Amino acid sequence: MESRPPLRELGLNAGKKARLHRILFDHGLRNGTAFFLPYDQGLEHGPRDFFANSQAGDPAYIVKLAIAGGFNGIAIQIGLAEKFYWDYAGEVPLVLKLNGKTDIPSDAEALSPVHASVEDAVRLGADAVGYTMYVGTPAQEADFAQYRQVRADAQRLGMPLIVWAYPRGAAIEAKGGKDSFYAVDYAARVASELGADVVKVNFPHPEKQKSVRPEYAAEFTSQQAIDAVVRSANRTLVLVSGGSKAGDQAMLDKAAQSMAAGGLGLIFGRNVWQRPYDESLRFIDSLKDVLAEYPSE
Amino acid sequence: MESRPPLRELGLNAGKKARLHRILFDHGLRNGTAFFLPYDQGLEHGPRDFFANSQAGDPAYIVKLAIAGGFNGIAIQIGLAEKFYWDYAGEVPLVLKLNGKTDIPSDAEALSPVHASVEDAVRLGADAVGYTMYVGTPAQEADFAQYRQVRADAQRLGMPLIVWAYPRGAAIEAKGGKDSFYAVDYAARVASELGADVVKVNFPHPEKQKSVRPEYAAEFTSQQAIDAVVRSANRTLVLVSGGSKAGDQAMLDKAAQSMAAGGLGLIFGRNVWQRPYDESLRFIDSLKDVLAEYPSE
Amino acid sequence: MESRPPLRELGLNAGKKARLHRILFDHGLRNGTAFFLPYDQGLEHGPRDFFANSQAGDPAYIVKLAIAGGFNGIAIQIGLAEKFYWDYAGEVPLVLKLNGKTDIPSDAEALSPVHASVEDAVRLGADAVGYTMYVGTPAQEADFAQYRQVRADAQRLGMPLIVWAYPRGAAIEAKGGKDSFYAVDYAARVASELGADVVKVNFPHPEKQKSVRPEYAAEFTSQQAIDAVVRSANRTLVLVSGGSKAGDQAMLDKAAQSMAAGGLGLIFGRNVWQRPYDESLRFIDSLKDVLAEYPSE
Amino acid sequence: MESRPPLRELGLNAGKKARLHRILFDHGLRNGTAFFLPYDQGLEHGPRDFFANSQAGDPAYIVKLAIAGGFNGIAIQIGLAEKFYWDYAGEVPLVLKLNGKTDIPSDAEALSPVHASVEDAVRLGADAVGYTMYVGTPAQEADFAQYRQVRADAQRLGMPLIVWAYPRGAAIEAKGGKDSFYAVDYAARVASELGADVVKVNFPHPEKQKSVRPEYAAEFTSQQAIDAVVRSANRTLVLVSGGSKAGDQAMLDKAAQSMAAGGLGLIFGRNVWQRPYDESLRFIDSLKDVLAEYPSE
Amino acid sequence: MESRPPLRELGLNAGKKARLHRILFDHGLRNGTAFFLPYDQGLEHGPRDFFANSQAGDPAYIVKLAIAGGFNGIAIQIGLAEKFYWDYAGEVPLVLKLNGKTDIPSDAEALSPVHASVEDAVRLGADAVGYTMYVGTPAQEADFAQYRQVRADAQRLGMPLIVWAYPRGAAIEAKGGKDSFYAVDYAARVASELGADVVKVNFPHPEKQKSVRPEYAAEFTSQQAIDAVVRSANRTLVLVSGGSKAGDQAMLDKAAQSMAAGGLGLIFGRNVWQRPYDESLRFIDSLKDVLAEYPSE
Repeated sequence: MESRPPLRELGLNAGKKARLHRILFDHGLRNGTAFFLPYDQGLEHGPRDFFANSQAGDPAYIVKLAIAGGFNGIAIQIGLAEKFYWDYAGEVPLVLKLNGKTDIPSDAEALSPVHASVEDAVRLGADAVGYTMYVGTPAQEADFAQYRQVRADAQRLGMPLIVWAYPRGAAIEAKGGKDSFYAVDYAARVASELGADVVKVNFPHPEKQKSVRPEYAAEFTSQQAIDAVVRSANRTLVLVSGGSKAGDQAMLDKAAQSMAAGGLGLIFGRNVWQRPYDESLRFIDSLKDVLAEYPSE
Repeated sequence: MESRPPLRELGLNAGKKARLHRILFDHGLRNGTAFFLPYDQGLEHGPRDFFANSQAGDPAYIVKLAIAGGFNGIAIQIGLAEKFYWDYAGEVPLVLKLNGKTDIPSDAEALSPVHASVEDAVRLGADAVGYTMYVGTPAQEADFAQYRQVRADAQRLGMPLIVWAYPRGAAIEAKGGKDSFYAVDYAARVASELGADVVKVNFPHPEKQKSVRPEYAAEFTSQQAIDAVVRSANRTLVLVSGGSKAGDQAMLDKAAQSMAAGGLGLIFGRNVWQRPYDESLRFIDSLKDVLAEYPSE
Repeated sequence: MESRPPLRELGLNAGKKARLHRILFDHGLRNGTAFFLPYDQGLEHGPRDFFANSQAGDPAYIVKLAIAGGFNGIAIQIGLAEKFYWDYAGEVPLVLKLNGKTDIPSDAEALSPVHASVEDAVRLGADAVGYTMYVGTPAQEADFAQYRQVRADAQRLGMPLIVWAYPRGAAIEAKGGKDSFYAVDYAARVASELGADVVKVNFPHPEKQKSVRPEYAAEFTSQQAIDAVVRSANRTLVLVSGGSKAGDQAMLDKAAQSMAAGGLGLIFGRNVWQRPYDESLRFIDSLKDVLAEYPSE
Repeated sequence: MESRPPLRELGLNAGKKARLHRILFDHGLRNGTAFFLPYDQGLEHGPRDFFANSQAGDPAYIVKLAIAGGFNGIAIQIGLAEKFYWDYAGEVPLVLKLNGKTDIPSDAEALSPVHASVEDAVRLGADAVGYTMYVGTPAQEADFAQYRQVRADAQRLGMPLIVWAYPRGAAIEAKGGKDSFYAVDYAARVASELGADVVKVNFPHPEKQKSVRPEYAAEFTSQQAIDAVVRSANRTLVLVSGGSKAGDQAMLDKAAQSMAAGGLGLIFGRNVWQRPYDESLRFIDSLKDVLAEYPSE
Repeated sequence: MESRPPLRELGLNAGKKARLHRILFDHGLRNGTAFFLPYDQGLEHGPRDFFANSQAGDPAYIVKLAIAGGFNGIAIQIGLAEKFYWDYAGEVPLVLKLNGKTDIPSDAEALSPVHASVEDAVRLGADAVGYTMYVGTPAQEADFAQYRQVRADAQRLGMPLIVWAYPRGAAIEAKGGKDSFYAVDYAARVASELGADVVKVNFPHPEKQKSVRPEYAAEFTSQQAIDAVVRSANRTLVLVSGGSKAGDQAMLDKAAQSMAAGGLGLIFGRNVWQRPYDESLRFIDSLKDVLAEYPSE
């Protein structure tokens, strides 16, 4: 079992450290782990994601769920932040998602345009910002260019930067696909090399070996794969994404393996809110039981 | 029947609230509903739209009609605003339409270029600005980039932002077309996620199910569809567009369903002014009778 | 007994509300009251203030005392913030004091020069900024000019602004002195008129009537005076200053009257740390007993 | 045997000279030669480069190896610099690599986007900056445009500029490939013509003559080729790159020829850290034995 | 005996830490102590200071003396830095003195105007900047205003900031004079409160009690006074100034007491170079013998 480094060893400036400390020790389990509720699917996939539980289409329902469930933060786009966060300001940390796109046009040259600035996040009282980087996209020059500004502003303003590191685009599809061990491992490393404080990754699938780099075309257990991903991220803390809704036990196993690997925590959206309120809270509790076993300084 | 939230619950800053209050309570029915007269078809379609009633080609005629008809606002491009609005400044609220294009080139990668700034709108005494976003266009990066500046300026200057949320482009055509329930619902949500104060949508057609996402390939009544669209927009107020001229009763039905769904009101152009002056006023009155049934705080 | 308004009624933007919520409900008594520890006397008076308890000259001692005593925040200058706050970042809210001066030159035209920006406060993870305004100084033009920039930046960045409203300068001395009811009441109002979110005042002395405006040359109890001061500040929340060290019971009485008047809380420095550690904690507890009687939403 | 010019003859401004002096005479062999450890392969190739020695995936391991091995500097990207260098600041010179990319999309129009500024390097206490220029790429306009800013900033701030001069792209492949004598010689010259203080090149392969310019389609020894490359660079000092891992003796020969040609030194990454720690140190020592034979003022 | 804190505990950013590490561990005794040679007396006092040893009027003589004597740095104005430092760049650290004045006009409202920027220091390859602050001057507003820019730039660019904290002006003269314990103690604290990384003070004279604050009008030994001054500076490292030339044994005693108090080191100019070269070196050696007894991490 790997251990997470304490905040004081991560080279964070005072503002980043203060805000991460608030997220990790003033909210959620207050034990150094993190459980975030992402809610940008209305933009990324459209309202179809809310058909399973139509209440979930109401941002106020989700913010209240985040507070009731004791999340460490809620990740939303600028529009919902402007219209809903003021009402609950300070009750749950805000992660302002700075870029996003619809899934209507083709993903071959994926790029997620920026909608808000780090200064918007400061103005709204956010404790972190989120940026989706499409690792491997043919549009990497444009992606890196807009990311650079975000990274520099976040450093200047002491705002923790969470990178959604998503392998994506035609070249990734040709080299094993977006959730292969190779792709996820590379994505975690890119986020670290380029200055993310926290990286959100999908759980790696070491069994997807078709067309991956030869180093990854071997036998790896899930645990070995997620261990490697967390090591590749080094001082960039790792959040594991829930992805589309799947079986609860599979989710709990994924969570346990991620935490055993030294991960910071989880960021689960659809798996949490695509079910009735009470069931959401029960599922949240079972995930928090996992996190409770991995306290850190 | 759904109800609209009062302005004080929308997270608006003082300037946005003051201007929306003027639009909704000092003009029109003064009951919290809105009825806008859009007049940018000369740019979007060309003078062919004025052949049915040649007087409608004269902007002064339209402004006078807006005043006589008791509209909550008139939406025009910068050129007409500069040349005609000074004459009637303050008599009817101005919605400065900030972008627009001709319909001559192909719509496959639709993008509506910006012609004026939010600061132009302030200078002209406008009470809101309008922006056309082509949801789903392959040009979404450029669209979102110019929208970002508009949104930020509108926030900074306290100017209400009305988004014309139009599904458009080849990818939309391949996924059910621009007025499918799927497309309209997604468009309303995108406007909300990205910070529109008001969104203008076309009335959704749930019967258009070819190639739409599976969640939308089911039986929905018109009322169910427009209810869902208004819910997807959440704290972004919804205006339903008239579109090309159709039968009056169909229009009245559409209006009634939109208001019953919790919509803010209507934005009808060609259906209003593509007929003689007196008939226009009579039709306006019948639509206002509908709006009168949906007062709010 | 007057009551404080809840944060949601103060016209705060989201960032100011989030940060004040954190200060008032995630720290201290978590009941909507505030107890701040100011520590800029090393600049304002010099190290002589630490002779009563030499440990108090060490900023690390003071930060630890603030954490152990459960304060809602600690107010320090940029130099100590850069060198000490990173170590405890997030454990106690930081109020970055933006201006300050030595007491060596004459106070007749008092002005407190700015040493740091609101953006510095953001970068350091502060939850509020402090500004000393010398109400009544002949240098008021320079004072207001630098204050204007601070206020505008604080508004733009969502940072709560605490104004140390100190009547000062030759003209104040000629009109009753710096702690007359007249002077304190005027100072509280000026802070409110000019946009402070919180104002720090000295406790008013209604018995000092020499040369004050005739309206104040009458019999007022201390309670009447502090009631009036809090009313003058209206939606600007009021902190009462401890001033130089005095008897504990006098301090407790002052605290009780301030809270009964609808004050937000206390900001006591020398009275707290000019005594041994254990005595400091005991005195803090007795003051917190007072605050505990005045919870608010 | 060619000799290197002393720093005072290179036309360097005071800052560039001071920093190069520190690199060359306060670190490493302190004899005017340089041995750098590059560590950006996690971004350029992904974590697969660490499979040969999994410890090498940990940046702290590499920084410690750089200190223990007595390197003249370590070249890393902004993310690792922010998170790891503070811990060892000043113990080994930092070369901040300003641009970089993944190897996932096609290299045909290679361009390495900029992630950090020369001012970032100053802030982090770096003694040099690195920039990858893809000589011959069809994207040379974008490459030169971003390089121009880097060069100008480096000149203004007195920061030595090391150019990774890599022939790359479809046109290079069509004219002999990226490590032909022709391509390397041209790359060295381009760096010199455009103001690099130091250039990193791959060792030239004069035997690769297919499709090269006729002047290079002749018999040249390796020594003749590297002599020519160093001459082409003139007052731009030359570092020879290790490239992918190869036999130790081949590396030592390459090193000896490079130094005999008047090279400044070596920049070896994978050849150093793709082996166990003790073997790394032994190999470093054998390379430093070569460098020790080429002292300069 | 007090101990100095290690660099890693001072809250320094990476650049400040790297540059201080270079000064303290790559030069001088390389043991964490500092011995600087200041050479701005030609501006501050005029060439009269060079009459005792006319060679000392030649900046090249002084730079060579600094190198031969193994100083940790030389502090000079922009003009001499431009004309002399390039020649020895990197051989001895440069402290660029950013402000300075002649002693011709009255000192009553002392202010030292800025001649160069932190960016100039970066460009010249300096490892620190120096700023003279006249603590207590009636011109404190102008002094603090220009200091604020220097502090912010030094923070932004990772440049250590050494403050020459000099009590000065009519108000200081009226309160005990510039080298009283009161004045020096206050000056050290002001530098710390306002963000100096290192402060240069004159050795305090506790016997000068006329007109000082009552707290200082008591019996203190020299050791007690310098102990207090170093404590007042807390995480700002203390350099003790030589001042005008005095007896060698008095200087050695002052040095020993300063180091025993936890000082960082010495900054001696006239006492060093107002004597022949060989005597200078002998005196330097005897002072370094003192520093050698106070190593730190």
